[in-house]
Amino acid sequence: MPSEFALIDRYFKRPTRHTVLGVGDDGAIFRLSAGCELVVSTDMLVAGTHFLANTDPEDLGWKSLAVNVSDLAAMGARPKWALLAAALPAATEAWIEKFARGFFACADTFGIDVIGGDTTKGPRNFCVTILGELPTGTALLRSGAWPGDEIWVSGIPGRAAQGLAHLQGHVVLSEPALTDCLAALYRPQPRVTLGLALRGLATAAIDVSDGLLADLGHILDASAVAATLTLAVLPEPTFSDNCYLAGGDDYELLFTVPASHHEEVLTLAQTLALQITSLGRIEAGPAGQLTVLDTADQPVNFSRCGYDHFASR
Amino acid sequence: MPSEFALIDRYFKRPTRHTVLGVGDDGAIFRLSAGCELVVSTDMLVAGTHFLANTDPEDLGWKSLAVNVSDLAAMGARPKWALLAAALPAATEAWIEKFARGFFACADTFGIDVIGGDTTKGPRNFCVTILGELPTGTALLRSGAWPGDEIWVSGIPGRAAQGLAHLQGHVVLSEPALTDCLAALYRPQPRVTLGLALRGLATAAIDVSDGLLADLGHILDASAVAATLTLAVLPEPTFSDNCYLAGGDDYELLFTVPASHHEEVLTLAQTLALQITSLGRIEAGPAGQLTVLDTADQPVNFSRCGYDHFASR
Repeated sequence: MPSEFALIDRYFKRPTRHTVLGVGDDGAIFRLSAGCELVVSTDMLVAGTHFLANTDPEDLGWKSLAVNVSDLAAMGARPKWALLAAALPAATEAWIEKFARGFFACADTFGIDVIGGDTTKGPRNFCVTILGELPTGTALLRSGAWPGDEIWVSGIPGRAAQGLAHLQGHVVLSEPALTDCLAALYRPQPRVTLGLALRGLATAAIDVSDGLLADLGHILDASAVAATLTLAVLPEPTFSDNCYLAGGDDYELLFTVPASHHEEVLTLAQTLALQITSLGRIEAGPAGQLTVLDTADQPVNFSRCGYDHFASR
Repeated sequence: MPSEFALIDRYFKRPTRHTVLGVGDDGAIFRLSAGCELVVSTDMLVAGTHFLANTDPEDLGWKSLAVNVSDLAAMGARPKWALLAAALPAATEAWIEKFARGFFACADTFGIDVIGGDTTKGPRNFCVTILGELPTGTALLRSGAWPGDEIWVSGIPGRAAQGLAHLQGHVVLSEPALTDCLAALYRPQPRVTLGLALRGLATAAIDVSDGLLADLGHILDASAVAATLTLAVLPEPTFSDNCYLAGGDDYELLFTVPASHHEEVLTLAQTLALQITSLGRIEAGPAGQLTVLDTADQPVNFSRCGYDHFASR
């Protein structure tokens, strides 16, 4: 295995776009745009927990950065800088080269400078820290939802979970759903443009990483409000409710907007050529209380939908 | 094992000092002081590679943050924010509680807000990202050393390596050296105050993490200069040369200062009540060339000093 320095130089030291000092010193240096504040998030991906040992390294490189980009999208921030710390067993250089290719493909897609990191020997583990900026005071928080707001979701959450279920033999997908669901699983597309457009429009936002119900639960908790969802409006009836409501790992945005701005959201969906679906409404009930209605407006018992994860808090 | 959310709430969610939004949303938000730029660094500590499985969790908590603080000290930056991502096996809560105690002891010592992170299941791995600020353009880089500069080091590098050598049975230390060396190993004290004081005084700086010679090598490479060190001035003759020159993990600062400012460095040492030793001089030789002289001014073959690590670049 080449030395740490050789690996960093060869695969992770690339020209930067908007950074004072990148990889190669004790720290990296960068500046904020005038009137902006900084948003930062970190995520750790562990072999066996977050990805299978035989996952394609290029996909893994993409995803390890994309899940972090999604966190900034959910804040309405523009991602600009990232650091990558990686523990690797005695990996072949070919594996690292492919991982770097996927990682930088994501970085280039979103205009992100890779400004630092760490490589070390150990069980495979990738920790990415992402930094971005937004005009001071404009961040989308989980805590801003208000009774009367409509609840919206981008895309079709559950595709990644459907793809995983197929791989695990729990369901059998046929084309074109199979390709679509595996793409959602392997190459999630963080909704950065949507997040930026939601500044000043959405009252709260989160990315769907734990599952739609669980992540809505985080908004309800943080905003101290209740909500009602209507299953009738599921955007993709061929999906199981379970994948749609409980499947994480899609990195769509779930957000709330005052009902008076309903048309603006629809216009935004058209502008971005992105499906955005209204799922229900925020209510002034007990903090965190969530009601799910079926097509006959009857309450659904949704413990089967993975809501336990949230309910156990 | 309690859920991720419960662990975060219980042990890692604490009041912040200078942060807009801390732990609990998709990202944390903070602002820079006027006229400042941001410095960021990340380090990953892996069980078996960086620490032994039976390391005291409180010491480990301290050290996992301290090694990152040291990176900012070496840049002359003031550390202000940190994120912690941790992979843990089915750890007991008692272990996590102790780790958090050590981590926050370091955070409180240096006035650092812990503003985010991630906890997940996996082989024990801690990845800390640290952020700090400094007045725009004042960072201490590795690349600024100039022929004629004197080379200085704080404290006594090699203490941590001596402590480790004792634990491994390679040397036998007696008190008070034993306590001192184990403290250096378990509770390194990053030189933040020194780093801040070196802004405008030092031409280059690095923290001694790979070993004195190896880290000096990084400065010589980055500055495209040569250097001569004199072993006669080793501050602690009872230490083996090997530990002093090659032992990493001490997190002292190694820096260069124009010879005309020799007295200022000595005054600074008095002010900070910190040993600072002049080791040699930067020269206009081939980039990266390092000569070590013994007490009789004869060149020493220092491959035995761990310089291989550096020479293999």
